[in-house]
Amino acid sequence: MKEYARGARGEGRVIGLVPTMGALHEGHTALVARARQECSHVIASVFVNPKQFGPKEDYKKYPRNLEKDAEKLAAVGVDALFAPETADVYPDGFRTYVSVEGISERLEGRSRPGHFRGVATVVLKLFEIVEPHFAYFGRKDAQQVRIISAMVHDLNLDTEIVVCPVVREADGLALSSRNAYLSAEERKAATVLHRALVAARSELSVGMRDALQLQTVMRRTIEAEPLATVDYAEIVSADTFEPMIRVAQLSYAVLAVFVGKTRLIDNLLIEPSPAGSQEFAFQL
Amino acid sequence: MKEYARGARGEGRVIGLVPTMGALHEGHTALVARARQECSHVIASVFVNPKQFGPKEDYKKYPRNLEKDAEKLAAVGVDALFAPETADVYPDGFRTYVSVEGISERLEGRSRPGHFRGVATVVLKLFEIVEPHFAYFGRKDAQQVRIISAMVHDLNLDTEIVVCPVVREADGLALSSRNAYLSAEERKAATVLHRALVAARSELSVGMRDALQLQTVMRRTIEAEPLATVDYAEIVSADTFEPMIRVAQLSYAVLAVFVGKTRLIDNLLIEPSPAGSQEFAFQL
Repeated sequence: MKEYARGARGEGRVIGLVPTMGALHEGHTALVARARQECSHVIASVFVNPKQFGPKEDYKKYPRNLEKDAEKLAAVGVDALFAPETADVYPDGFRTYVSVEGISERLEGRSRPGHFRGVATVVLKLFEIVEPHFAYFGRKDAQQVRIISAMVHDLNLDTEIVVCPVVREADGLALSSRNAYLSAEERKAATVLHRALVAARSELSVGMRDALQLQTVMRRTIEAEPLATVDYAEIVSADTFEPMIRVAQLSYAVLAVFVGKTRLIDNLLIEPSPAGSQEFAFQL
Repeated sequence: MKEYARGARGEGRVIGLVPTMGALHEGHTALVARARQECSHVIASVFVNPKQFGPKEDYKKYPRNLEKDAEKLAAVGVDALFAPETADVYPDGFRTYVSVEGISERLEGRSRPGHFRGVATVVLKLFEIVEPHFAYFGRKDAQQVRIISAMVHDLNLDTEIVVCPVVREADGLALSSRNAYLSAEERKAATVLHRALVAARSELSVGMRDALQLQTVMRRTIEAEPLATVDYAEIVSADTFEPMIRVAQLSYAVLAVFVGKTRLIDNLLIEPSPAGSQEFAFQL
C-alpha cells in the first residue's frame, strides 16, 4: 500500500483516505462520495482495529463482511481498498502508541479506557502508510474527530481532516454498524438518542443556556424510554470536550446510551451565530 | 522547514537528518560527516527538548550555544540547520505523545521517568517535518536508538535509522555535552565508565558469561572511584533491554554513573560471532 500510494502521489494525484472498520453503511459511502468530489484518488481502508476495543467490548462479534464492503465501495467508486491483516498492522512485539491527553480521558474515553489511544495509533499508522492529502471522518464520532485533529496538529502531519455530516435513518437514528445488533423492539427505542437531541435543540432555540438544565431535558427523554439507559448526556466544549456551565461557544450536546446491550452515541453541534447575537445554529 | 525539505525531496535529493540538542562535539560532527557521505542533502536540527527532561533535571542549565553550533555545522558541511523555538514545537494546548512501551520503562527510563516519551515524541515530530530518508544517531544512547527504531517499525515510518559508533576522548571517555559540567578532578574520574566496560570486555574475552559476575566486575571498578556512584550497571538484551542471565545473544553492557552531580552513560556492544563459536566481538 505504501508503494501504491507513493506511486499515485508521484503521478500528482490528490489522495483522499476514508478509514473505516467495515460493515459499511450510507454514512461511510457518504464519506467516500465526498472524497470522490474533492480528490483525484480515493483509498478506503477496512480494518477492525483490536486496539480500540476494551477487553469486555464487542471486538469479536463486531460485524465483518469484506466482500459486501468491497462491492459497496466499488459501487460508490474508490480507486483502492486497503484491508490489512491484524498481524500486519500489529506484528509480534508491537509496542508504540500515540496518546492525545486530556480530551481522550473524557466521555467515550472514560467509558472506554484505551479506546482513543487505539484510535490515534491506528489512524497515525494509516496516515503513515497512505500519506493522504485528505482524510474523511463522520461527525457522529465528534470526540474521535477532535482527537485526530489534535494529533494531526501536534505531530505536524500533512493530512487535512475533513469532517462530514451525520447520516440518519428517516426516523432520525444515526447510522452505525452497531445498529445491526438491535432487535426490532430496540431499533424503535433507539430513536431516543435523536429525540433527546431534538428536545435539547428545542429548548436551546427558545433561550435555554444552562448546561445542567439542558442535560436534564436529554436525560428525562432517555429515561422515559424503558429499553434505554444513559451512559452520559452532557454539554461540552467542542474544543476540549470539557463540560460547560452555560452554552456560549461552539459546543456539542453529546450522548451515549445503552439500548438493550448495544451502546450507541450521537451528538448535536451547537454553533454560535457569527453576529454575536443570542442565536445559535444547530447541526444534527 | 516542511516546505524546504519538500522542495529538496522534489528535486530528488536524498535527505539525511541529524537530530541534536546542540552543544555540539565531535560525536555530533561524526554523525554529520557520515550523513554527508550517504546523503545528497544533510539537515541538522538543534533543539533542547524540554519534554525529555524530568522536573529535577538539567533542562535549564543544559549548555546552549547556537552560534557556535552553526559554525561547527557549517565547517563539517550541512545544507540546512533547523533550530525551532520551543513554542513552535510545543504550542499552547500541545497534548499528543508517542510512547514505546516496555523498553522505555527500563534503565534510562526508570531513572528518568517520561524521558523516552519526550524523545519519541520530538523525534516523530522532526521526522514528520523533515521526512528524512535517513536519520543519524550515536550508539552512546543505545536504548534511545533501540526505542526510535521500534517506533519507526511500529508506526510504518519511511525513515531509516543509522547508528554510528561512540566517539571517545583519548582516555576513553565517551563524548557528551554533559562532560562540560565536570570539574577537572571529576573529568579524570569520569574515565571510570570506560574502565568498567573495558574490565567487563576483558572478562568476556576470557570466557565469563554470567551476567551477575560481569555486573560485579563493572560495579567494583566504579565503586573503587571515590567521585563515582553507580546508577545502574547491567547486561541486557540488545533487542528488549531486559536483563540477561547469561550472555548468549546480541547484548549490551550498559552503565549510568554519577560523577559528582553529573550523570553519564556509556555502553559496550557484545556481538556473538556468526560462526556460533564461543567467541564474541565487541564495540566500545
